[in-house]
Parts: sequence; structure tokens; C-alpha cells
Amino acid sequence: MSQLSWAYLNRVVEGPSRPLQQLLDAGRDADEIARGVRRRATWIGELATQTASRHNWDRAEQDLADAAAVGARLIHPGCAEWPLAEFDRAFGFAATGRSDHLRSYQADAIPPHVLWVRGMPLDQAVAQSVAVVGTRAATRYGHEATRQLVQGLATHHWTVVSGAALGIDTVAHETALATGGLTVAVAACGIDRTYPARNGALLDRIAAQGCVISEYPPGMNPQRHRFLTRNRLVAALTAGTVIVEAAWRSGALNTLSWAEGLGRVTMAVPGPVTSAGSLGCHERIRQGRAQLVTGADDVRGLLGAIGALDVAEQYELAYAATPVQSLTRNELRVFDACAPGGSTAQEIAAGAGLPLPLAVHLLMDLARRNVVRLDGTAWSRVEVSEG
Amino acid sequence: MSQLSWAYLNRVVEGPSRPLQQLLDAGRDADEIARGVRRRATWIGELATQTASRHNWDRAEQDLADAAAVGARLIHPGCAEWPLAEFDRAFGFAATGRSDHLRSYQADAIPPHVLWVRGMPLDQAVAQSVAVVGTRAATRYGHEATRQLVQGLATHHWTVVSGAALGIDTVAHETALATGGLTVAVAACGIDRTYPARNGALLDRIAAQGCVISEYPPGMNPQRHRFLTRNRLVAALTAGTVIVEAAWRSGALNTLSWAEGLGRVTMAVPGPVTSAGSLGCHERIRQGRAQLVTGADDVRGLLGAIGALDVAEQYELAYAATPVQSLTRNELRVFDACAPGGSTAQEIAAGAGLPLPLAVHLLMDLARRNVVRLDGTAWSRVEVSEG
Repeated sequence: MSQLSWAYLNRVVEGPSRPLQQLLDAGRDADEIARGVRRRATWIGELATQTASRHNWDRAEQDLADAAAVGARLIHPGCAEWPLAEFDRAFGFAATGRSDHLRSYQADAIPPHVLWVRGMPLDQAVAQSVAVVGTRAATRYGHEATRQLVQGLATHHWTVVSGAALGIDTVAHETALATGGLTVAVAACGIDRTYPARNGALLDRIAAQGCVISEYPPGMNPQRHRFLTRNRLVAALTAGTVIVEAAWRSGALNTLSWAEGLGRVTMAVPGPVTSAGSLGCHERIRQGRAQLVTGADDVRGLLGAIGALDVAEQYELAYAATPVQSLTRNELRVFDACAPGGSTAQEIAAGAGLPLPLAVHLLMDLARRNVVRLDGTAWSRVEVSEG
Repeated sequence: MSQLSWAYLNRVVEGPSRPLQQLLDAGRDADEIARGVRRRATWIGELATQTASRHNWDRAEQDLADAAAVGARLIHPGCAEWPLAEFDRAFGFAATGRSDHLRSYQADAIPPHVLWVRGMPLDQAVAQSVAVVGTRAATRYGHEATRQLVQGLATHHWTVVSGAALGIDTVAHETALATGGLTVAVAACGIDRTYPARNGALLDRIAAQGCVISEYPPGMNPQRHRFLTRNRLVAALTAGTVIVEAAWRSGALNTLSWAEGLGRVTMAVPGPVTSAGSLGCHERIRQGRAQLVTGADDVRGLLGAIGALDVAEQYELAYAATPVQSLTRNELRVFDACAPGGSTAQEIAAGAGLPLPLAVHLLMDLARRNVVRLDGTAWSRVEVSEG
């Protein structure tokens, strides 16, 4: 019975619905509320207005059948796989009103009442997950940056959540799949719809190696306002959101704002300033609303993954200093004063503008470190590397 | 007489010299100090050690003649064109020790005692100036980003100061010249030396449309330690330093550290994360040690140029919202529910999941703004633009 009631409510109440949430919070169950809506009971309050034009759309059985036909199930807060901890944390944060970035979307900062799911248990899929989103009008650079980022994330067992849109989203899902990682697509239309049309095969592969989920009943069209409310789920389900390529008015920025409003980690990948493709990323970094990340290691560092090396440490390893780069300024003066053919200590002291005893002391020390060498009375450099 | 004394001191004391600075601060003049150094007077204190191996290098007349031969003059703190305000502000800040980023270079955080100058009066050249520096191993992207940046700066009468090195520095100088702006090159070798060798013609053009300056006496070789101390002048003379492309160990980062230690504005241009060329820029932005800038408008905004538009305002103008992008969520629901062939208000209310009176109210409002249109009983969208 409960599944039918949830399906009915999902059809007649377009989420997110605060009146429905309030009734659930007050302890009413789905069966009771569905009955109330059908009968226009006075106790449903505001929900009567929200369902005024749809309450007689009673298609619950058909919706469940349509979903089952594509291998999808309906889950609700009573289900074991409901990502309760994620939703509680995200929407609990939003309720504190600590972020002023939700603006006109504040009213939507509540969990979905149900989700339609194709694939593995949702709670497991998102247990260690990060959102990777970006522009549909992706450049070659955006593609490459996304591939590098997602390869690193998937390799380290981070589930990549995105919106299955063309461009960056598609590259993110595809790379996660190719790397053998889990990935979750949050659709802005019915779970049985294929949108964008050309991503049908991709969505099937995501369902087989993660989940495809939707807040909307079967058959629903993807519409602009649904993209915006869908974005809150992408942000809410994940520990943080990374935007890769987003121009000034990219929808991906809306997802980032949701992450901010829901208390998640917000990150942006920089790009060439010679194209407008990364303007949105740069602007958020500049405003201090997103942290600059250059790859998976940065993201893992920010999300606090165990075993993530500090990024500066990694760079120190990857781009090791040459012995000459490690010299102090006085050591450099002495080193620089060694002529290619060899110089006496006196010549070096004068060339370096240092007193002879100090120059000799420094030379001896450099010799111990094999940076200079003494042959007879001539000091010379062991190795010349470009500084 | 004084010019000869300054030239002598410049030859035998390799700057920056704190003992020399202390004698000058104590009121000794150049003639007196030169005499003291020549005679190894006890009152010159530490300066005796610093000049131990060079005090008998008395080539002042020759040095002045060598400089004059390339059209260069010697200036010192008593000269009208000495950039006193810039040095006082920069090294005064460093003396407060408010920045811990000078590290091993703290001892060098003092002004030069003289400068050799080819070109226009230095104080005028740097009165409104910004440093633009970067890697010698510049990519095509680095070239293009530098060109765009410097064009905007030169157009708005900002003098571009750099180090005349190959790569980004060269592009910065050349673009400033091509844009008709002023530019200043700070050399790490004698003013009569051409370094890098292939930049001889460029240095001549800089001297004709700005200045070439050096802290070192004629004939001095460019050496590693001189690049590092030269960098402090690039930072000290300018209101801020921008790095464009700098890998993990780029010398340009040293200039940026100097700017930080001298209380100047520190800025970095981001770039592709798919190459290592901008690693240094990204790292400084991430550490909060440089502000992300995408072009001249950002730089001018940070340096507080009069008339600089707020960058966000400019983007708002450049990437105007479409009427649909400006809709509220409920307006979008109504707009999205208008079918291409036209829909009745009842259909729209049901499609949008909104009560009929609210839907009608929103439709009327959208019609006033010419976003939807009513023909008979059919509402349709006036314009469909991609969100």
C-alpha cells in the first residue's frame, strides 16, 4: 500500500514540497497523506493548494509499472537504501540558514519525498562521492581536465555524481565508467525517459555500474525548473561539488551554489583566461566561494580522504629541487663566482664580494655536498643546472 | 665628487648591503663612506668585512664612462628621479616584519644604494606601474594570456615592469611597447650588458619608451643570486605583481614572494590544469598568497585604479541574462508548462503543478514582460532560448 501512496503523492505533488515535508515531519504517513489529498481533507493545509490542479491524477500503479519496465524502483525515507545521513546533514545545514547563497531557492532546500532508482543501492553508491559538473558547451580543454580529474577520483574509489547532461557531465560519467569506478546520474526527468536522447546507452551503463536516479515520476519531461531543483540533489548527495568549465551563466554554477547552501565543499577547476569557458570557475574562486583545485589529489585533500598526500608535498616530490636550487644566497654567490675553467678561492671571494674566510668556509661546505670540487687550487662547479 | 663616490661604492659593495644602509641612515654621506672604505676606517664596521675582497677595485670613472657610452646615468637617493616613495613604502613595510614570506631574504629587504638608468626619469616611469613576470619556458597559452593582460594595462596607462628575461617577461615588454605604453626592464647585470643576448634591440626600445635599470655596476654578469635580488626591485617599484605562467619552481614565484614581503598586491593568472605551466600560479592562489586575476580589469580593480568597473558588473554587461534566465522558479514552472503549440491556463496550471489562480497571475505578469503571449485562450512562449 505504502508504495502506491508514495507513487501517487509523487505524481500529484511536484517536489520539493515544504507542506508535504511538514506533514511527514508531523508524523503523518504516506498512506494517510495520500488519502487526505484525494479527499481534500482540511488538515492537509497548504498541500491542498499545491495539489489543486493535479490531485485527480491517480496513476500510481501505472507509474510503478512504467518504472519496473526499465528496471527502476521507488524508494522513500523508510527504505534501507535511502541516503538519510546525506540528506539530514545537507538539509539540516540549510535549515540553520548559515548560508545566504540559496537566495530564491531557500524554499526548495528540503529533501525529496521519494526517489526512483535504477541500479545498485543508492546509499552505498554515494557513501564516498563527489559531484563533478560543468558546461554543456565544453571545450577540448574541459574534456581533458575532466578526464584527468575523474580518473584520479575513480582510481581512489570516489563515486562521481553528475547530471548526465552533454559536455562535462557526460565526460565525467564516461571516464568514471572507463576507469572502473562507480557513478551516479541524477536525472531531471522521469526515470524511464532518455535525456539527452543520445545518452541512452550511457545511462544504461551508469545503471549497471552505479545508479540513475530521479525525483520525478515516470514520463516527466526535463524542464528548466527541474534542472534547477535536480541540482540540489547532486549537491546534497555528495561530500563536495567540483565545477570544471563553467562560463558566466552556466547551470553548473547553480549546482555549486546548492553545495554552498547545503554546507558541502565547493571547488572549481581553473582554465585558460583566454577563453570565456572558465569565467564562472574563476569568478567563484575569486569571490572565495570555491576552492581552486587542479586535480583529484586536491579534491581528495579537501574532502579529507585518508591517505591523501598534501598537494604541496606531492609537488615537492614531482618537481624536486636541484642541488643549486637549494643553495642559500651566500652559497649561490660563491657558486656563481666559480668560473667554468676553475677559480682560486681568492678570485671567488672577490667575485662573490665576500671575505676570503667566509668564501672558503662556504666552498668547503659546498664541496661536502658535491656541488663544487677542488682540483689543486682550482674550485669548479660539479654540475651546472639551469636555475 | 659624489657621483664618483657612489660609483666606487657600487663597485666594491655588492647590494643589498645592510651595513652600508646603516651608515647612510646614520647620516654619513657617500664621499665620507667611500673614503672610509678605501682607508679601512674602523667606523665603517661590518662594511669592512663586506668590502674586504674588493675595496681596492677603484674603477669609478671608468664605470661612469662605460655607462655613459650606452646612454645610462647613475642615480642615488639624493636625485630628483629616485623612486623614494616606492622604496620607503615597500622596505618600510618589510621592516615591520609583518610578512613571514621573505624568509632567508629578509636581510636583503633594503633599498638599492644606487641605480643605473637608461631612459626617461625613473620616478615618472613607475608612478603608476605593475609588475608582470613569468616563466622563461612560456607556452603558447602563456604568450596569449600575457598579451591580453598587458594590452589592457598599457591601454589604461599602467607601466609594465618586468625582468627582460625570455618568455613571459619578453612578451610583456613587447606588448607594452606595441600598445604604446611605458615599460621598465630591471636587469640583473650591468646596464651595458645585453642579457639575454637576443634581447638587445628590445632593451634599446624599452630605454626609448620607458627605462632599463640595474642595481649593478657596468660589466657585471647576470648570475643566479643577482636574479633573486633583482626581483625585489621589480616588486618594490610597482603597486603589485602579476605572475602569468609559473611552474612549481619558477623564478617568477620569487618575485611574487618579494611583492608579498614588501606589502604589495600579489596576483596570479590561472591556466590549464592539464599542463604544469601554471602550477605555481594555482598553488599561490590556493594558499591565499595571490589573488586570481583573469585580465587587466581584474588587476586594475585590485590596484584601485579610478574608473575601473567592478569585474562582476562587467561580466553582467558582457554576458547579459536572457529574459528566461531572469525568471523565478514558479515563473519558470509556468513558462516550461507552455506547450510549443499553445496551452490553456488550465493545462499550464496542471503541468506546472500550481493552483489555477496563481498560474494565471504569473502568466499575466510574464505577458507584460513579453516572455509569453495570449492568443484567444492559448498561451505560448514568445521566445525560446537555451537556459
